[in-house]
Formats: sequence, structure tokens, C-alpha cells
Amino acid sequence: MAAQASARTRGEMARQATPDLAAVRAQIDGIDRQIQALIAERALWAHQVGKAKGKLAAAIDYYRPEREAQVLRRVVDRNDGPLSDEVLVRLFREIMSACLAQQEPLKIGYLGPEGTFSQQAVHKHFGHSAKGLPLVSIEEVFDEVAAGSADFGVVPVENSGQGTIQSTLDMFLTSPLKICGEVELRVHQYLLSRTGHIEDIERVYSHGMSLAQCKNWLRQNLPGVHKEAVSSNAEAVRRAKKSDDAAAIAGENAAHVYGMKVVAGPIEDRNDNTTRFLVIGRASFPPSGNDRTSLMVSIRDQPGALYRILEPLARRDISMNRIESRPAHGALWQYAFFIDVAGHADESPLKDALAEIDDFAGDVRVLGSYPVAVP
Amino acid sequence: MAAQASARTRGEMARQATPDLAAVRAQIDGIDRQIQALIAERALWAHQVGKAKGKLAAAIDYYRPEREAQVLRRVVDRNDGPLSDEVLVRLFREIMSACLAQQEPLKIGYLGPEGTFSQQAVHKHFGHSAKGLPLVSIEEVFDEVAAGSADFGVVPVENSGQGTIQSTLDMFLTSPLKICGEVELRVHQYLLSRTGHIEDIERVYSHGMSLAQCKNWLRQNLPGVHKEAVSSNAEAVRRAKKSDDAAAIAGENAAHVYGMKVVAGPIEDRNDNTTRFLVIGRASFPPSGNDRTSLMVSIRDQPGALYRILEPLARRDISMNRIESRPAHGALWQYAFFIDVAGHADESPLKDALAEIDDFAGDVRVLGSYPVAVP
Repeated sequence: MAAQASARTRGEMARQATPDLAAVRAQIDGIDRQIQALIAERALWAHQVGKAKGKLAAAIDYYRPEREAQVLRRVVDRNDGPLSDEVLVRLFREIMSACLAQQEPLKIGYLGPEGTFSQQAVHKHFGHSAKGLPLVSIEEVFDEVAAGSADFGVVPVENSGQGTIQSTLDMFLTSPLKICGEVELRVHQYLLSRTGHIEDIERVYSHGMSLAQCKNWLRQNLPGVHKEAVSSNAEAVRRAKKSDDAAAIAGENAAHVYGMKVVAGPIEDRNDNTTRFLVIGRASFPPSGNDRTSLMVSIRDQPGALYRILEPLARRDISMNRIESRPAHGALWQYAFFIDVAGHADESPLKDALAEIDDFAGDVRVLGSYPVAVP
Repeated sequence: MAAQASARTRGEMARQATPDLAAVRAQIDGIDRQIQALIAERALWAHQVGKAKGKLAAAIDYYRPEREAQVLRRVVDRNDGPLSDEVLVRLFREIMSACLAQQEPLKIGYLGPEGTFSQQAVHKHFGHSAKGLPLVSIEEVFDEVAAGSADFGVVPVENSGQGTIQSTLDMFLTSPLKICGEVELRVHQYLLSRTGHIEDIERVYSHGMSLAQCKNWLRQNLPGVHKEAVSSNAEAVRRAKKSDDAAAIAGENAAHVYGMKVVAGPIEDRNDNTTRFLVIGRASFPPSGNDRTSLMVSIRDQPGALYRILEPLARRDISMNRIESRPAHGALWQYAFFIDVAGHADESPLKDALAEIDDFAGDVRVLGSYPVAVP
């Protein structure tokens, strides 16, 4: 019904060349009233979910990541504008977060301080009604979740450009916690200089990866300017800070930290520069329909055993997103592999493949099956 | 119609002792579909506001703070639960922010880095679809807004507990910018210690103001424990960090910065510990129906002139929220007063009072008339 109203609105608008401002505002006021009533109704029903679970429970008792992922995917499926999928997903995350937090909000541990990308990841995944707990280390995030003082934790695991954060993966060698979700955050590149004027720039410093990411922009906007790859974006900013004719490519935040001005940005050619975070918790959750599973595999005799683990997956056409080897603790198992595969451990074909692997290879542990990140 | 649906929902729910989970989820899915269609419709109409203004404009051209304040006040007025006013205001801020950002988002300068309370204030006031520009100083926030590279700026002006931030007020002595809004952020107190165990604590350090704010909590939870007032909360944390039997009261963020554990929090007795921010811009905006006006008054002969300025306000029962004296620049005017009064400078009775003051007293400048902060 509301979907038809939207189609009608488009028609109505097309007939009005210069709409009357007061009339448009009256329309918006009417829409706001309806949205508000529906949000209240949704909150009342969400409250009922808590009751359906047997008692008036804290958010942790009826938070279901697989259900949230399904709701958000439906939002994306039926979106036909004018707002982007990303914006709508954000609005619905916030509405769900508010409905869930009516009794006792979720408590989410993350690597502080406030203002880090980790905090942004917490808000992106759990909305602003969840309560973030800034902690001093990734270890402490695992500890507080294990002890129950945080319901979930959010830890960075991969920077596109810088690769895997090994210390996070290593935590799973000893922690019994489960992976319950993943969050992806886009990271943007900016051109920074002392003066802030593009016409002053004769040299651009950055990490080789960042220079590569901004290649087209640089060719179009700074042709003939000298580009120099340095060890890190922070080092690039330190160099650019020394003279008025130099610039650096770095994150926007570096402009503040080093007292530089933003010349332009975001300037990356493709907007797929992301940091990936894992959501860790104490429980496993059922399939959402589009899931990923993280496995930790410990094996004695590397080449042969690895093949025997991968073969049952390959034979079933189970796609693998990532494989990462780590020296394992203890003498018995010489290697640990972290493997991300498509599917949920409770569903075929992954379920069958895991049963088969378990029979003969090393020690295979399911770190978690969780919904693939919704943009 | 949707408001009736909400009343119907409550009745329906009251009859169901243990609702069926699948049925409740189906209800929520139906509601989500309607909310989404209405948000899309709202975005289309908001787009029309841009057209009504004469062209397809950037957000700055049709952003109207007085209109946003009116929309949010209506949201609060018609709220009858179950979500709090604060949560609903946040959701509608985000919806408005998303609708406004369809062409070109608002650019908001603030005192960086990302993660400061200033950034939180930007998001609270403008929503997450606005683009925040972290800058290195309050001066630079004024400069970038004046130059037009930021549409608005957000600067801290008052900490309850620490008082007025003089350097922000002093900027208005020379800047022609206008105050277009105010934002209030709640700030919470936490008990921090090295061990994180309350039973270890024998001494509590904090700023006297913070100790006072947590008096009841301390009496109930740490009776007989020695309390010591120190110069700042940061100093309190530094002291508490030296031994296992000491604790400090400070912001949650300090736990990270100093590697301390959160024993408990928030622990303030009354939750009215706030920081106030001003929104600065280049233009003045019309009345919203519940406004505040900030005045800067420069006078030569302090006692007599101040009385003559206050009298026309008092005679009209115009309430004053704040008065703050500052030494003025230049020899001609010996004192500057910053005065906040109720009302809008374009509306009686404030308009008449200002006309009368202007006639005889020193130099009175309206720094801005703006909507009173919506919680």
C-alpha cells in the first residue's frame, strides 16, 4: 500500500514543475507522522519477541544476527531509490537497534579509544542504541566477552592494503569464543598538504598501495607531478609537512593529527578500500541464507594434510575466500590454517564436507558461521 | 491511520499471552515494508523542496534549522512510547539527514580528531549523512566556515562542571559568523582502577566537581573510602594508576588512554552533566517557535551601562540563561558581555528590547538567534 503511494508520489511530482514549498512540507509532515506510528508499532512487536522467548529478556537473549541480516537484505532487495542501499541499511540498523535496546542494550567491547574505526564498526553493525565499551587491547576484548561483561566484541581482522591482522587470528588459538558476524568499513584516501592549494604541489608521497589506488585521479589532476612511494602513509605525511610544494595521500584523520589541510578527497579510483572486522560472542547462531564459515585447522604434516582438507571442500564446489597459515602453539600441531569458506556449518554441503574432513585430517575447529556482511 | 494501527496493536498484543515468534516476525516484516516505502516517499518530496527553492540545489541551499527543530518537536509531542523521545529524535535526525544529502551533503567543520565529543555533536545535530571535516583548532573551524569550505561549524562553548570555553566566545569578538544552533551532549562519569575490582579500592581521586556529581553513588557503594579532590580528572587517573588500592572518577575514554579498567559506570547521581556546542554559519535563519538569542555587548562604563542593557530585557520578562563578561579587544570598549536570552531577535518582545538597547547603550551585536536544542 505504501509502495503504491510512493509510485503515485512520483507521478504527482512529475506534473508539478515548481512545487509549492508549504504544500511539500505538509506532505512531509504527514509522512513523518505515519513513519513515527509505524516505528512505535514495530517497537511494540519487538518487545513481544522478547516475551515470545519466554521472559522479558535483555537484548542479548533475543538478539539474532541471522534475523537482522535477513531483514537488511530484504531492505536492499526492495529498494528502488531515491536513497542508496547503504543509507537505507543504516536507517534500518538504527531502527532495529532502538527496538532491541528497550530493556537492556547490547554491550559491545571494542578496541578503544572512542573514535577509532573499531567504534565506527560497532555502530555500523549494532546501531547507536547498543552500548560500546572501549577497551585497551584486542586481548581484553576477548576477555570481557568471555567473562560476560560484554555481550559481543568487535575486532579488526583485515585491512585491504595491509593484509591480515595476525594477532586477532592468533587469539582463536586459545580462545573458545565464536565468530558471530563480520563488518566491513570503507576507508578513504585524501590528498593533504601544508597550504591546501593544489597548484602548489610538485611532489606526492604515499605508500605504494595508496598511490596505486589513486592512479587515475593523480593522472587526471596532477599530471607530470613527481610521485614517490614511501614506507607508510604516516611517513608520507611527515615528509609532505616539511615543504609547501609537497603533498601526501593518507586518511582524512591524518590531516588533524599532523596539522595538514585537505586538498581533495576521497580520491581513490575504486571505492573498495575496506577494513574487515569480526564480531565475537559466546554462542553460535543458525543460518541466515547467505553465510560464511571461518575454520581453524591444525595439521602435523603440512603438504599432504592440507590437500586432504581442501579436497572435500573443492569436490563440493564450496568456495574459499581466504586461507592463511600461522605457526601453531604446542609441538603436536606444527601449523594452523585459518580458512574462510562459503556456507553455514549446520547446512549441506559444508556440513558434509566438515564431517568428512574431521574423520582423518588434523584438528578442525569451526570458529563460527555468520551472515556475510550487509553493505 | 497508522496511529490507530498502533492502538490496535497494543490491544491485539494484550490478548496474546505467549505470542508466536513467526507471527510476530511477519508483523514486523510488514511494518518494515511500510516504513521503507514511506522513507522513499519522504526522500522524493525532500528532493522537491530543493526544486521549490528554484533549482536542484546543494543541501546548504535548502537546509533550514528552524524547520528541522519544528519537525523534531512534533516528533516529541506526539510520542507516546514505547521508545524514548531521545531515541526517536535520533532516528528522525537520521532520516532528515539522509533526505537532505541526496544531492550534496552538508559539510560540517569541527575540532578534530575524529572521535572527539565535537564529532559526536556533529552527528547528533546533523545526522550521519552530513560530512564531518575534522580541523586542528577552533580558529580553523571559524576560518573554514567563513571561507565557505565548510557549510557550518560545531564548536564547544560550555562544559557543565568546567564552565565556559572562553576561547570560543572570544572568536566572536572578531568573526562575523552567526550562531545558527546549539547541541547538548551528555557526558558520563566512570569509576576506573588498575585492577577493575571494587573490593580493592581504598581511595578515590577526582576533580571536586566530579566527586560532588557522584556523591550518592559513592556513599552507597564505597562508604568509608577516602575521597580526595585533585586538579583535574586526568590528574586523578594518573594518581590512581600508581597503586592497586586507588580509583579515579573520569570519562570512559580515560580508561583507554591510561590503560585502566572500568569498575562501574555511569555513576553520576543526576544525568544532567552536559557539554554545550554552538553551530556556526554564515546566514541567519527565521524563528522556529522556541528560540534562543546570543548577544555580544561591548560597553565603556561597566556598572551603569550593564544595568541599562538588562533593564529593557527585564521589563519585558525576557529570561536570561547566561551572562559572561570578557575583557574586550581595543581601548574604546573596556568590557564585552556575552548574554543568552530567550526568544528570536526578529520577534517581539526581544526585537523591541533590542531596538531600545541599541539607542543608548554600547555596541550590541546579535551573534545569532537559533532553535533551543532538541534533546
